[in-house]
Amino acid sequence: MSRRTATELALHVDLSLGRRAGVEAALRDAIRDGRLRVGDPLPSTRSLAADLGVSRATVVAAYEQLAAEGYATGEVGSATRVAEVGAVAHSDDDPNPLAPELTHDFHPGRPDVSAFPRRDWQRAVRRIMNEAPDDVFGYPHPRGRPELRRALAGYLSRARSVVTDPSAISIVGGFVAALSFVGEHLARCGRRRIAVEDPMLFFHRDVLRQAGVECVPVPVDGDGLRVDLLDRLADSVDAVLVCPAHQYPIGATLPAERRTALVDWARRHDAWVVEDDYDGEFRYDRRPVGALQGLAPDRVIHVGTASKTLAPGLRLAWITAPASLRRGLIATINVRAGVSALEQLAFADLIEHGVLDRQVRILRPRYRERRDRLRARLDELGWIDTPDGAAGLNLCARFVGEAAAWSDRTIVAECAERSVSVIELSRHYAVPDGAPNGLVLGFGAPPEHAFDASLDTLIVTLEAVAARRRP
Amino acid sequence: MSRRTATELALHVDLSLGRRAGVEAALRDAIRDGRLRVGDPLPSTRSLAADLGVSRATVVAAYEQLAAEGYATGEVGSATRVAEVGAVAHSDDDPNPLAPELTHDFHPGRPDVSAFPRRDWQRAVRRIMNEAPDDVFGYPHPRGRPELRRALAGYLSRARSVVTDPSAISIVGGFVAALSFVGEHLARCGRRRIAVEDPMLFFHRDVLRQAGVECVPVPVDGDGLRVDLLDRLADSVDAVLVCPAHQYPIGATLPAERRTALVDWARRHDAWVVEDDYDGEFRYDRRPVGALQGLAPDRVIHVGTASKTLAPGLRLAWITAPASLRRGLIATINVRAGVSALEQLAFADLIEHGVLDRQVRILRPRYRERRDRLRARLDELGWIDTPDGAAGLNLCARFVGEAAAWSDRTIVAECAERSVSVIELSRHYAVPDGAPNGLVLGFGAPPEHAFDASLDTLIVTLEAVAARRRP
Repeated sequence: MSRRTATELALHVDLSLGRRAGVEAALRDAIRDGRLRVGDPLPSTRSLAADLGVSRATVVAAYEQLAAEGYATGEVGSATRVAEVGAVAHSDDDPNPLAPELTHDFHPGRPDVSAFPRRDWQRAVRRIMNEAPDDVFGYPHPRGRPELRRALAGYLSRARSVVTDPSAISIVGGFVAALSFVGEHLARCGRRRIAVEDPMLFFHRDVLRQAGVECVPVPVDGDGLRVDLLDRLADSVDAVLVCPAHQYPIGATLPAERRTALVDWARRHDAWVVEDDYDGEFRYDRRPVGALQGLAPDRVIHVGTASKTLAPGLRLAWITAPASLRRGLIATINVRAGVSALEQLAFADLIEHGVLDRQVRILRPRYRERRDRLRARLDELGWIDTPDGAAGLNLCARFVGEAAAWSDRTIVAECAERSVSVIELSRHYAVPDGAPNGLVLGFGAPPEHAFDASLDTLIVTLEAVAARRRP
Repeated sequence: MSRRTATELALHVDLSLGRRAGVEAALRDAIRDGRLRVGDPLPSTRSLAADLGVSRATVVAAYEQLAAEGYATGEVGSATRVAEVGAVAHSDDDPNPLAPELTHDFHPGRPDVSAFPRRDWQRAVRRIMNEAPDDVFGYPHPRGRPELRRALAGYLSRARSVVTDPSAISIVGGFVAALSFVGEHLARCGRRRIAVEDPMLFFHRDVLRQAGVECVPVPVDGDGLRVDLLDRLADSVDAVLVCPAHQYPIGATLPAERRTALVDWARRHDAWVVEDDYDGEFRYDRRPVGALQGLAPDRVIHVGTASKTLAPGLRLAWITAPASLRRGLIATINVRAGVSALEQLAFADLIEHGVLDRQVRILRPRYRERRDRLRARLDELGWIDTPDGAAGLNLCARFVGEAAAWSDRTIVAECAERSVSVIELSRHYAVPDGAPNGLVLGFGAPPEHAFDASLDTLIVTLEAVAARRRP
């Protein structure tokens, strides 16, 4: 093919890039979208310079650059030709699968982010930018910034009765990252079988499997994990993942006898207990029950997060590990934790200034009221049973009577059609077929002003769902 | 053992916690440090209330709490006794292994963080806190915030000639996290053999191995990866990790012929190219050579980071993946990326406001000057050879002449004794025994005002090191 001119090639030079870069970008575009094909000669430098109104030196430099990058081949001066290059990447739709797409968001596990302390965060960042030494911009300690580990050690001891110290804590990027790192480390130590609660958050099973451990479901009753069954498993397990503060999704608080029995079991079997303390701060009928970890700091790996008390968008979680696991866990995490040092300092500042405690104090009565109202309205329906555990951000609602046979999966789909977001209970069981039908409802997500309207819509929707199923 | 009083137990009630919580904390402490042992009765509620000057109801409530948490057993009223609990976690020293411990920091890969644009960051956070919708505090998209992916797509196209769009980009917590996720995903797809440059950053080999892929070293010469050897490997590989902009640690820029040959090889073998573009922004003799990815967006996984242009403390990196890999890569990353949504927005704000470009403009001549001075001083020594590739934040210094036989490992240790931090070259080779001796020196880390003094110390130290070895 003969040489074409800049006009024939429809070259558009964006001068805001600078002349040389503009010429390069125009030619790269022409190559990528096929106006110039493999083997085609580029215009002569003289004619292109004249056509584009730039110096010949600029065009020569642009051709050299394109040659250095592999877009063009051949000596400058002789015919420079297009080298073999790739096609344009396509663009596609890209909605956030984790964002509330539905208007009435009763998806479990989401706090009311409209309560985020924006002013306090801004003040914390201002303090850091004014005062922090340069080293905060360098590589953070693999465990996380010492300032945050100190602040967290105090908070966890005070608020959750966790026995910890700054060197016991590792900061990671969210609860799922923590669970993944812990699972990966257990697998690396050859501890590949982990007992999990049945039902549990289905998503966490996937995370553990991906990390290389096998999940062995152990039933949950109204008091949480059936600890007594751990000894009766056909094959022994190396660890157990448990939610003692309030089991998800059932909502039970693990009672004292089961706590000591669990620690006792772990000691006898040289096994680890992984404590999922994702929203232990929220209890409405009494003070929160302290973490299991305080009973056996040498046996329990405690995992907490800022996702429920502050915001999931922070992607902040922390692991307190027994002394014997710490070095290995850090080697597994390596420098993959991914949590910004600046964010760690800002969060530490919020803890030190009492903002985290204040948020929990403000939100606790708000969530309690929401929970009570949600529960009362669900109870009025007559076909839904809710437990009386008064904790957390979620409510487990079981279908009872004739409704026990209604497919919760279908009902969730019908709710979604009416822009109501809930999750089915059966999906949380290791074997969803034949599992109890019901709904898991989060009451944290709607902003305060919208909660009433969303609650009304939820109830009207459930009434319609039921009416459709009754003769 | 009989009941002891509060005084005998040396209970200290911290009233700042509140009365009930103070009593609980005092008892928990006594249990943990052994003043109260397993089976010991707690003081009677009546006597403890009197001793501590609190109401009996407060003590009863505290005992109930301790019982609920598993610290104590027995019915309230009868003798409440201490249950089996764990020992106190120990505290240990905890220095940051990644922080510059040595005064004169020529550790490679570290930028001058004293140049971090603190004011701009603070302004960005202020804008976000004033203007961002509440959804920024919710779970971010698994790929990252769309605002940042849009800003990065523009920046990468402009600054690195990467062909990308917002839906092609995934934001992760630092380069090592990116490499780990990519490696893990390749392994999940059954692509377990990856060719790597020899020498390379030793640490990255460990990361890939941990992710489940096997590293196959391929030699590097003065022009970077010996692409021609890929076809001659005994067993085929599924991917190749390469630094085209400037190979670490050698510093070579992959020339055009090797770029097209590499893409050609990847097409013929249905293999992936992972492009490590960690500091592609810094080139001193000419404009930066565009990324390899632009040549073959369908074959190249491009990875970049803010660690060199802004700060490692941000823990920010990005992956542009070919369309066919995107869905699977996101499933592998899951929600483990761990990057704060707030930080993503602040970084996007910096890009949109031209701060990132400005930082590169400011730092490029600064780093060039440092590099030139470092190189000139090393050349004067007479036993060190430095290449003339003018790019990046590191310099590869090979020992020549009689010095070629000097153990670089020993010399690094001798430098450390004099508070000079450098890394030995031989360690970067797959087989360090018999590999070339030399040093890899970073010239980014010292703050501007301290560079001269550090450089003097480095040279004096190296002179002393050499004098010790000469007759």
